[in-house]
Amino acid sequence: MTTWTQLLQKSVWHKHLRGVRRKTLKETFVNTIKAGESVNDIFVARGRQLAYKKDGAPYLTFSIVDRSGDMKAVVWDDVRAMSKVFSEGDYVKVKGNAREYREALQLVVRELERVDPDQVDARDFLPATNRDVDQMLDQLIKISQTVENEHLSGLLAAFFNDRAFVDLFKTAPAAKKMHHAYLGGLLEHTLSIARLIQAVSGHYKGLDKDLLLTGGILHDIGKVHEFLYETHIDYSDSGRLLSHIVIGVEMLDKKIEALNGFPDDLALVLKHMIVSHHGTRDFGSPEPPKTLEAIILNYLDELDAKVTGVRAFMDSEDPGATWTSYHKILERYFYRGKG
Amino acid sequence: MTTWTQLLQKSVWHKHLRGVRRKTLKETFVNTIKAGESVNDIFVARGRQLAYKKDGAPYLTFSIVDRSGDMKAVVWDDVRAMSKVFSEGDYVKVKGNAREYREALQLVVRELERVDPDQVDARDFLPATNRDVDQMLDQLIKISQTVENEHLSGLLAAFFNDRAFVDLFKTAPAAKKMHHAYLGGLLEHTLSIARLIQAVSGHYKGLDKDLLLTGGILHDIGKVHEFLYETHIDYSDSGRLLSHIVIGVEMLDKKIEALNGFPDDLALVLKHMIVSHHGTRDFGSPEPPKTLEAIILNYLDELDAKVTGVRAFMDSEDPGATWTSYHKILERYFYRGKG
Amino acid sequence: MTTWTQLLQKSVWHKHLRGVRRKTLKETFVNTIKAGESVNDIFVARGRQLAYKKDGAPYLTFSIVDRSGDMKAVVWDDVRAMSKVFSEGDYVKVKGNAREYREALQLVVRELERVDPDQVDARDFLPATNRDVDQMLDQLIKISQTVENEHLSGLLAAFFNDRAFVDLFKTAPAAKKMHHAYLGGLLEHTLSIARLIQAVSGHYKGLDKDLLLTGGILHDIGKVHEFLYETHIDYSDSGRLLSHIVIGVEMLDKKIEALNGFPDDLALVLKHMIVSHHGTRDFGSPEPPKTLEAIILNYLDELDAKVTGVRAFMDSEDPGATWTSYHKILERYFYRGKG
Amino acid sequence: MTTWTQLLQKSVWHKHLRGVRRKTLKETFVNTIKAGESVNDIFVARGRQLAYKKDGAPYLTFSIVDRSGDMKAVVWDDVRAMSKVFSEGDYVKVKGNAREYREALQLVVRELERVDPDQVDARDFLPATNRDVDQMLDQLIKISQTVENEHLSGLLAAFFNDRAFVDLFKTAPAAKKMHHAYLGGLLEHTLSIARLIQAVSGHYKGLDKDLLLTGGILHDIGKVHEFLYETHIDYSDSGRLLSHIVIGVEMLDKKIEALNGFPDDLALVLKHMIVSHHGTRDFGSPEPPKTLEAIILNYLDELDAKVTGVRAFMDSEDPGATWTSYHKILERYFYRGKG
Amino acid sequence: MTTWTQLLQKSVWHKHLRGVRRKTLKETFVNTIKAGESVNDIFVARGRQLAYKKDGAPYLTFSIVDRSGDMKAVVWDDVRAMSKVFSEGDYVKVKGNAREYREALQLVVRELERVDPDQVDARDFLPATNRDVDQMLDQLIKISQTVENEHLSGLLAAFFNDRAFVDLFKTAPAAKKMHHAYLGGLLEHTLSIARLIQAVSGHYKGLDKDLLLTGGILHDIGKVHEFLYETHIDYSDSGRLLSHIVIGVEMLDKKIEALNGFPDDLALVLKHMIVSHHGTRDFGSPEPPKTLEAIILNYLDELDAKVTGVRAFMDSEDPGATWTSYHKILERYFYRGKG
Amino acid sequence: MTTWTQLLQKSVWHKHLRGVRRKTLKETFVNTIKAGESVNDIFVARGRQLAYKKDGAPYLTFSIVDRSGDMKAVVWDDVRAMSKVFSEGDYVKVKGNAREYREALQLVVRELERVDPDQVDARDFLPATNRDVDQMLDQLIKISQTVENEHLSGLLAAFFNDRAFVDLFKTAPAAKKMHHAYLGGLLEHTLSIARLIQAVSGHYKGLDKDLLLTGGILHDIGKVHEFLYETHIDYSDSGRLLSHIVIGVEMLDKKIEALNGFPDDLALVLKHMIVSHHGTRDFGSPEPPKTLEAIILNYLDELDAKVTGVRAFMDSEDPGATWTSYHKILERYFYRGKG
Repeated sequence: MTTWTQLLQKSVWHKHLRGVRRKTLKETFVNTIKAGESVNDIFVARGRQLAYKKDGAPYLTFSIVDRSGDMKAVVWDDVRAMSKVFSEGDYVKVKGNAREYREALQLVVRELERVDPDQVDARDFLPATNRDVDQMLDQLIKISQTVENEHLSGLLAAFFNDRAFVDLFKTAPAAKKMHHAYLGGLLEHTLSIARLIQAVSGHYKGLDKDLLLTGGILHDIGKVHEFLYETHIDYSDSGRLLSHIVIGVEMLDKKIEALNGFPDDLALVLKHMIVSHHGTRDFGSPEPPKTLEAIILNYLDELDAKVTGVRAFMDSEDPGATWTSYHKILERYFYRGKG
Repeated sequence: MTTWTQLLQKSVWHKHLRGVRRKTLKETFVNTIKAGESVNDIFVARGRQLAYKKDGAPYLTFSIVDRSGDMKAVVWDDVRAMSKVFSEGDYVKVKGNAREYREALQLVVRELERVDPDQVDARDFLPATNRDVDQMLDQLIKISQTVENEHLSGLLAAFFNDRAFVDLFKTAPAAKKMHHAYLGGLLEHTLSIARLIQAVSGHYKGLDKDLLLTGGILHDIGKVHEFLYETHIDYSDSGRLLSHIVIGVEMLDKKIEALNGFPDDLALVLKHMIVSHHGTRDFGSPEPPKTLEAIILNYLDELDAKVTGVRAFMDSEDPGATWTSYHKILERYFYRGKG
Repeated sequence: MTTWTQLLQKSVWHKHLRGVRRKTLKETFVNTIKAGESVNDIFVARGRQLAYKKDGAPYLTFSIVDRSGDMKAVVWDDVRAMSKVFSEGDYVKVKGNAREYREALQLVVRELERVDPDQVDARDFLPATNRDVDQMLDQLIKISQTVENEHLSGLLAAFFNDRAFVDLFKTAPAAKKMHHAYLGGLLEHTLSIARLIQAVSGHYKGLDKDLLLTGGILHDIGKVHEFLYETHIDYSDSGRLLSHIVIGVEMLDKKIEALNGFPDDLALVLKHMIVSHHGTRDFGSPEPPKTLEAIILNYLDELDAKVTGVRAFMDSEDPGATWTSYHKILERYFYRGKG
Repeated sequence: MTTWTQLLQKSVWHKHLRGVRRKTLKETFVNTIKAGESVNDIFVARGRQLAYKKDGAPYLTFSIVDRSGDMKAVVWDDVRAMSKVFSEGDYVKVKGNAREYREALQLVVRELERVDPDQVDARDFLPATNRDVDQMLDQLIKISQTVENEHLSGLLAAFFNDRAFVDLFKTAPAAKKMHHAYLGGLLEHTLSIARLIQAVSGHYKGLDKDLLLTGGILHDIGKVHEFLYETHIDYSDSGRLLSHIVIGVEMLDKKIEALNGFPDDLALVLKHMIVSHHGTRDFGSPEPPKTLEAIILNYLDELDAKVTGVRAFMDSEDPGATWTSYHKILERYFYRGKG
Repeated sequence: MTTWTQLLQKSVWHKHLRGVRRKTLKETFVNTIKAGESVNDIFVARGRQLAYKKDGAPYLTFSIVDRSGDMKAVVWDDVRAMSKVFSEGDYVKVKGNAREYREALQLVVRELERVDPDQVDARDFLPATNRDVDQMLDQLIKISQTVENEHLSGLLAAFFNDRAFVDLFKTAPAAKKMHHAYLGGLLEHTLSIARLIQAVSGHYKGLDKDLLLTGGILHDIGKVHEFLYETHIDYSDSGRLLSHIVIGVEMLDKKIEALNGFPDDLALVLKHMIVSHHGTRDFGSPEPPKTLEAIILNYLDELDAKVTGVRAFMDSEDPGATWTSYHKILERYFYRGKG
Repeated sequence: MTTWTQLLQKSVWHKHLRGVRRKTLKETFVNTIKAGESVNDIFVARGRQLAYKKDGAPYLTFSIVDRSGDMKAVVWDDVRAMSKVFSEGDYVKVKGNAREYREALQLVVRELERVDPDQVDARDFLPATNRDVDQMLDQLIKISQTVENEHLSGLLAAFFNDRAFVDLFKTAPAAKKMHHAYLGGLLEHTLSIARLIQAVSGHYKGLDKDLLLTGGILHDIGKVHEFLYETHIDYSDSGRLLSHIVIGVEMLDKKIEALNGFPDDLALVLKHMIVSHHGTRDFGSPEPPKTLEAIILNYLDELDAKVTGVRAFMDSEDPGATWTSYHKILERYFYRGKG
């Protein structure tokens, strides 16, 4: 399986992650700025609006955004000129001073300069996994290599040898909200599922372990196209119109077609694992799990999504509090205990 | 579009339907047999069981089935030999006499002979549309020819020029129960949808009529593989494991791939119509309708399925009754009025 | 059926709509006012509040409202006197200047005068259909005249000859939100349903077309009393306590009682169409559709409501965006495409 | 209020119930017939079928039905003649002998004679309340007389002075299944509700007791037309097509119209009590309770229906068992305790 | 049963309530403060935040809270020192002046002093029943004394003789929102249920009145631990993790264990009343009611909660309005009528 | 921890299972009896009924039942005497001959003798785990011994040292239907959960493994009292009235009370795991999981129940079929594949 490593080393993304990553330009993050400080760094500019003071003079407001949060910015002087420097969603280098205004921080901008996307590291501006992406990929590939069935093994190899796919797969989030909603989240979730399957698959007799593992590794591949994750995380057109379940089946079809003699029956139960992995129609699976492997995948997927999502929610809350705030989607408070 | 007609004339199915259809061997149907009559015709044999009389002598029971219903049959003499003549599900030519036994009809079989599937017309044994299949297909093709968008027009032609597809499409039922649950039902339903779309599409401004019509014609194509319909109507493996929605997207992908330069955006909204045509996740659509064309298709599809299904249910009931019996799936009685 | 036309020409509403409509006093609409402009026109005044500056001096704030939207207004001088000029919900003629204040427009009012409701055209202050009301009514009456059953025809005539009913029917909205939520919306929706029925009723055999058409025309009549639509659109007491379905049956009962010999059975199936037209109990129908005509009405009603509501929602959004914002009631984003 | 008593004494139904009821012809009930006994009494004949023995000779089977249950009957001799004596659903006088056949009782009929409906007391053939109907009516009227509001009092009098209504109201069941599903059940349930309201209405301040009581007494009046209860209990056409809620509002409208000056607001909240008394749309109320009186009626109605229905279910079960059998609609076993 | 009275007279809570209650320190309540007034009283301080003016000078904001509502407070001078005087949630004595600021009232604080919890009466700061707590308790005890079954009577005595329990039971709210959401609310609700049971239990035959009454009195005892109600009303840890249903069963178990020879069967049906009193699993009952007594308790509980909650909601709204505002949990407007 | 082993060796149940189990009297099982064979063995007798032949002579029918199924039995001779020999549900020793009658097997009984329950091994008559119960218990105890927290460890020891509990825990089923619905099923399920927890608990950081394992081992203890499992498997009174969730909390309370100084907080989160392990209120948990440990337990419990239940269902079906029959509770067919 040397091909994989070779291929991966040529990957542009890989360079970022394997030590050759150039030093980021970014040192100041929004959530660390304090009133009174001067700021000089790159942010995404969003929500720009031209407004007018009582005396009729114009001023410009927008938000500076990075992966740590967002903050209001205002331009009082030289407004016309400055407003032409950038468009909605651009990267901008901003110089100015932070001050308290109406109980919130505000950056009074003095200088402003558009920055080319090539100059920045997107992960400074979007939340990202704090784990080593390449290491996770290596681990997932190693687990893939334990699959003995030659068709399934070949299929996994076909995916991991597809550089375009791997680049996306290493970067994609697993969700817009709730769990693994950050760059690298899909890989992190997939690796977790693969390991849970390894831990559990020996527990029951009569399972097709190769099928279970392959289905587990591929169950969410459609998410590489379901989301946009360049300057912000959102659903793509195909994500909203087709869902990652349908996209995943389409991706599987293309890879299987390119392989020789992949058995129809095997393709069917594998696609069924993608189709049914949300467990019920209510959650978007056109058919519920009808094989033992699909049942197991469904529960492990829910387990991993829930545990990871709830833990992240707990971690994002006031560390001193016994209870989290109310979780609107899961409709409950979570208990963090007293200690 | 002559190709279509040419192709269709070569079709084996076509021959059946365009006058060259050989005279069926079958003259006697189960629902017309009366006590005291002698019977000599072909049926499907199902549910065969060997049993024993009080004196220990064996006898053989099974059901004779055709598209009109089923009836018990019994062999009293020469049982061992007769039981070797056929297997479960075979076509058999049966000679015997009908009699009343325990308040039901029963055929006492004297002679029994296995018949080759080639010798029979499957539609004698499965319920089938009572409309002319080729005529319906011609009408659907004519409607297809009104599509002006060259990509969509080309796509429809690709389907109708695919003889294997057309053969299945002309034969497939639209459901196992409820509505159009008979051979030719898919075509009948599709034609009805296409006409409803023609009637309605001028009603609202700003619709993409070509898209609406193409989506309407292709929305259920996955059903040609969702069902088995050779000797009985049931779900296929892929039907149960993937659903006709996913199968339909796969079929569309293959045809689109074979065309040159089919626009991605157009493919997306077309596939969305298949994906969403059941309206909600509860009914098996991974995503609900998000375009006007998809919304319209969803309601017309429900309208046609409900009206056709309820009318067939009404017609199957006692013609003298004001109300039908209770419809378990739709959970109500239907009112047929007083006369 | 000349009576109808004669009657309609005498209608007060009719005059408004047939060219004799006096020129509206209103020229300035809220959504066209720009910072810096002076304003002199009539608006509805809502949400008036007396407040105090830091120096203790009072000032008066309220919103000026018309069919195009609303805008903050403030009175700084002569506050006590000005505040006595008008009450909540009154029409007021306002003179003042628009300015930008805290990122929103605000009207600084100099003069203020209450205006009598007789002086204004309510449709300047409430959203209204942009189609010709009388023309729609004529079209609906023409469709009504195709009903051949003398009882149903007589019933429709009884409604259209009832001037009080017609006046309300021409003005009422079809909803408070979602679809046709504007003056004339009920008529627009009813006409659309009548036309859909004409388009579809020939599609299936064995339908009672007269019943279907009459039920379609009368299905929402209860809405003329379900809503208030004089200075704003809201539910009436009887609308909230009884629902338009029950009100509609009551209205039908009264008209039928006044006719001679309307057959009981016909009344029953017609009332059933009103009772069941929301399709399920969940949506407010005490009984689900139990006749083919009721089933068809239910789907066409949903189709028209959804298509019209979604299209209006699409049209109200940023024309440059591929997707609409999130639709809270239908729980999805809608796709407007890239073109 | 003497009118009421006078009127009621003239009622045909009344005679049955006030001592002048003629002795029933019926002495033998189905559930008391034992194998070996001879039978000579009147029953309803249902499900008649002509069948044939092995030797080709015809025989006739049907069920004999009365309020205690049903039992198979068979005619072996003189079949052609006997089969012409009666039609489906007729009352028949039957002579014959009961015997055990295939583990069930069967009546071998020797003589058979059609009986005119006038000759029988319908309550021998349908389950009926075991309480005194006139006494219950008297009690309900006495409670009605405590209503002080002259409009409501007049309305109640209008109903109780309507002989046709009273006759139906005294006879109607309150349901087809579940609770009070027997002749007189509607009256029994209504009286129970009226008493519960008396017990509870002093419990909360600020209630309109007259409204609450009147709404309670009239809430189910639509049931007199929702059901058929002549020879068996079933839904009527209008019951299935409109529901007793809509029918009840129609009945109220007619009575109110005939009264002078019944206040609109009062009519509205009274009708709202009928409209909303099932509590939610799911249970068939187009609007949920929106006044305190409607809320109270809803819960007392549910309380009475549930307690009465469950107690009847408990009483119908094996008296020695700790638990009832499974109640399919309420989806549970009920606990009757150990002694 | 003298013990109860004796015990209760020693209760600390009792003293508050029987006339010996010391005069509260509190005279000014938030909802009575007007712009321009000076304030000098005790409040709870919540949501304290240090902020900065444009000139960099700090100021302190927080809310002053009591049972009547809350109001913004601000400290402009001597900020550092004043901010050290109190912590979040403390009682503080505040001197200052109310003024209108940005359309809301604001208290400009001049002096600030922390107050010890012992110095205040918690009910000044939390909403409380406006009925006499001891009188309600006496009434409930009198009703308890009508229970004749010695085991149930002994059980009730055990609870009412438990001073710690009684203290909590007299103080606890019955809910955080919706109904009886104030100090003493649990007792008020329980007394109401006990009386409803007295009114209704004679209505049906065959009920175990002692069981019904005891179950009614004890059904919500778990709420004394489900809530926190010292300085604000919220769920406790055990309330959120176990629910008052489970806590109630645990409390019952402990009391029953301490009694001699309480019959197992009786304990079972009594615990079942607690377990099932929410009626369905959806509302938190692990099992639905399976005895008549449990069914009755469930409906009376819902009746009392709904009527009391809706009436309180109606009372909290604009007295001049015909309709309340929208009730988000019950999902409707309520009708208060026109008079 | 020798105590446990010592204790267990004295257990009566233990003897059965550790080789000293006396040879069962039973050799013939219902599902192996063939027409024509003579039978002489012990069965449970159920559904006894006395009936009469056409000639008036009595005969006796009942079912003979053991763990393999049931079969009709009939006594033609000496009926009165034989019918006195046994009561419903007794163990009987039966001699007779099997024959085919009306397409089913029937045992014609010649001799009949009641058998004392002490003489039989209940597991011959009820389905039981096919795994070694003591071995499973040993394994579970070993896993329990890995718990390090002294309180939790002491709690587990308290349960496993309670001989009465252990005897029940080794015998109880885990369900009446669906999964582990046989003797020993509870232990089998609990052991499986404990192992799954071991496999998974290292997978996520920050979990309290001791809590997770203890909660997993104790989550279903209430089932030892929820079911009856002496001569047949059914719900007990307390099972139906309280549910195993409430019973489990009660059992935990008693054990914790007997221990010294078990921390309240620990008891709370442990009880929460029992309370919430069904995941949602719909499935009978009064509160949903609010800790990570409770979330994990919920999913592993569902995983084990579903996989085990579906596998057992698959195994019980025709081994040659690709699909199982329809599973009514899970509402789907399951796919067993083609090979």
